[in-house]
Amino acid sequence: MNNALLRSEIELTLKSPLDTERLLDLLDQLQPFDLAEVLRELDEAARLELITHLPLTDAAEAIEYLEPELQYSLLNRLSDDIASPLLKQMSSDTVVDMLLAVHPLQAEKMLRLLPADYREQINNLMSYPEYTAGSLMTVDYISARAYWTGEHTINHIRKVGHEAEIVSYIYVTGTRGELMGIVSLKEIILAPPQTHLIDIATTEFISVPAEMEQEEVAQILSRYNFYALPVVDHQRRLIGIITYDDVVDVIHEEATEDIHKLGGSQPLDEPYFKTSIFSLYKKRIVWLMILFVGGAYTATVLESYQSTLDQVVALSFFIPLLIGTGGNTGSQIVSTLVRALGIGEVKFGDLFRVMRKEMLTGLFLGLSLGVIGLIRAAMMGVETSIGYVVALSALFIVLWSSIVSAILPLVLHRLKIDPAVVSGPLITTLVDGTGLIIYLSIAKVILNI
Amino acid sequence: MNNALLRSEIELTLKSPLDTERLLDLLDQLQPFDLAEVLRELDEAARLELITHLPLTDAAEAIEYLEPELQYSLLNRLSDDIASPLLKQMSSDTVVDMLLAVHPLQAEKMLRLLPADYREQINNLMSYPEYTAGSLMTVDYISARAYWTGEHTINHIRKVGHEAEIVSYIYVTGTRGELMGIVSLKEIILAPPQTHLIDIATTEFISVPAEMEQEEVAQILSRYNFYALPVVDHQRRLIGIITYDDVVDVIHEEATEDIHKLGGSQPLDEPYFKTSIFSLYKKRIVWLMILFVGGAYTATVLESYQSTLDQVVALSFFIPLLIGTGGNTGSQIVSTLVRALGIGEVKFGDLFRVMRKEMLTGLFLGLSLGVIGLIRAAMMGVETSIGYVVALSALFIVLWSSIVSAILPLVLHRLKIDPAVVSGPLITTLVDGTGLIIYLSIAKVILNI
Repeated sequence: MNNALLRSEIELTLKSPLDTERLLDLLDQLQPFDLAEVLRELDEAARLELITHLPLTDAAEAIEYLEPELQYSLLNRLSDDIASPLLKQMSSDTVVDMLLAVHPLQAEKMLRLLPADYREQINNLMSYPEYTAGSLMTVDYISARAYWTGEHTINHIRKVGHEAEIVSYIYVTGTRGELMGIVSLKEIILAPPQTHLIDIATTEFISVPAEMEQEEVAQILSRYNFYALPVVDHQRRLIGIITYDDVVDVIHEEATEDIHKLGGSQPLDEPYFKTSIFSLYKKRIVWLMILFVGGAYTATVLESYQSTLDQVVALSFFIPLLIGTGGNTGSQIVSTLVRALGIGEVKFGDLFRVMRKEMLTGLFLGLSLGVIGLIRAAMMGVETSIGYVVALSALFIVLWSSIVSAILPLVLHRLKIDPAVVSGPLITTLVDGTGLIIYLSIAKVILNI
Repeated sequence: MNNALLRSEIELTLKSPLDTERLLDLLDQLQPFDLAEVLRELDEAARLELITHLPLTDAAEAIEYLEPELQYSLLNRLSDDIASPLLKQMSSDTVVDMLLAVHPLQAEKMLRLLPADYREQINNLMSYPEYTAGSLMTVDYISARAYWTGEHTINHIRKVGHEAEIVSYIYVTGTRGELMGIVSLKEIILAPPQTHLIDIATTEFISVPAEMEQEEVAQILSRYNFYALPVVDHQRRLIGIITYDDVVDVIHEEATEDIHKLGGSQPLDEPYFKTSIFSLYKKRIVWLMILFVGGAYTATVLESYQSTLDQVVALSFFIPLLIGTGGNTGSQIVSTLVRALGIGEVKFGDLFRVMRKEMLTGLFLGLSLGVIGLIRAAMMGVETSIGYVVALSALFIVLWSSIVSAILPLVLHRLKIDPAVVSGPLITTLVDGTGLIIYLSIAKVILNI
């Protein structure tokens, strides 16, 4: 049955005199993500009703897919004896995100539903700044002591495994809580039951500090194909783990951010339709103004060539075409290089290799466009000499744009400035004025004016 | 010890009279990814030497990170008794990628190193087209029968688990091989040993057909936060699974592709430095030519307004600024919308909502820039009336660009054309000419010429 059909059936079942068995049967066919969609569409009374009928783990998983504000209002309206186990069951990183989204007093009140030690862990997790490893991590893993046997560990998992989110890997710690190794559930099962964990655990593992930026965390996890990354404090004590699904979200976010920036806008913080018109305006006006004010120098350039333009008005016909081409070339190069820098394919040390590559490519591109420019000018019936000016200008503008676009992103990256600020619009504006100077200087020489 | 240091030590150890113990000790500190980097940098003799000293699983994992051609040449030069177990240990999707990268005869020769039934599976996997679910899947999972008990399954894992890549989830199949449910290793351990698998398995799961496009696979896996997705044939028989790490690669690839396209270039198929100058040229010249030839219509527009420009030369000063602003606005909008379409936030059905949002935002942006344009023109000392022309043009050009940029990506998406072809450069070129018409028409009316 498809999701839309299921949803309407569930709504009907909720409205008619309650047939719990039928309802649970319907709900059982849904993934938690789809269940969340159903919850989102129901009115509040039905939503609360539905939650109370769901098995605890299903309800908790579905709630995790809701927006933090909705999660809060739901849990807040449920009676404590229902909300408390739900909150305990939810994964700790989701609880933290929810509590950070509401008023501190509301958060504090909700925290009282949790047992003291877990409350302390959550409070601790809430202290890590956004966009860092600390803000991504969860404490719902299982740790075990180095001297435990496989059998002992399995028994431990039987005891605490119901609450842990991640059990495919067991984190082996020493007496002070320092991370000593990682062992997979598979390895424990494959080894003889009396084997000590430390003898089968991988002791050469990669861990990250809580302060690491989430972008770097994503790079490490995707480079090494890890399922999860342990986070340690300065004493190498295990404080949490980051799982692949949170990293997948980060990868999506970072790509979106780069795309928005390369398009010449500040990145949106929320999905498109959740972004208000005022906030869209704010994100866009900054760069539009900078580019408008900065780009106004093109008017000054043209003013200074007024006599040249007065003498040969036909020259102005080709202005948009030529500066546009410079901008297009630049836009191609910066988007390629910004992405290559972002995924670590290119570094500042490669500057000269990049310049050489881009200049050679630019040379061939410029030559090709120059030939087309010559043909186009001839077709328009302007003087042959103007045709030569257009052709030569196309070549030099493309070459110039290639050099600028090759250098800028790498230099910014070196200066620890996000290279994505060199957007298509920025590079276009930058090479517009210089392109005009190239064009009109060539014109003055060739046309002898 | 950091990786660079480790590498040079390993190279030294390989050169001196062989101290195998020391070597293995050094190698043990490296992750497979880093081991692959070491392999890549060694000369061929040392590379082969190193492989023979590594434990089988470590060697196989490291080789998986190498490029397909290098994998092949390595395995091909090793003696059969070393190459054969390595090949068997490598994950099936990597083997498939390698065999597809070499000549069919070479592939056939290498396949002979594998046992007949596995060879058949690999041959089968090789038949799925690129960029589909089938091309991403692996057969290194564990399947179990519905009537097996937990205990029986654990014993089965002990037998076959060494070779399987994925054991965190067990795939429960019926007599015809049809997928009936999925159960995690955790659930098996938590349940009493005599429980039948089918009683604890999730029977409501999401599976995908082998023909599904990889982009859609990535969307499903990241939406539901799945660790892996089962792939089934038309009879619902399990034929493979796709794990999150392959999906992470797809997400990276798709984002790179979008960024390259939005920058106005065809996406590169290989990393930046592996792309030859000729191939960079080919990827870029297509759009540059289209835009250059298409953009040449701006010259025709300007030619037709020749008398207007002759009368008021100052008008030409503001051409680059005004059309640049139209392009910038368009570039901001298309990058936002193309990304929103790509991750499924926006659909064609939202067309009117998007248009309304963009027109209102465009109105406020246009008004702001109009005011700045007025100030700028006054500062340059041109006539006040020209200032009004510039201000009004900024407003209308931004509005016009907003409408075009809001509609185009959604319509293309509807027509099953990748909306990312509406790159920044394309939208800039599109609104350049129309921007000129707006500007010069306003000028004619206000200046009365």
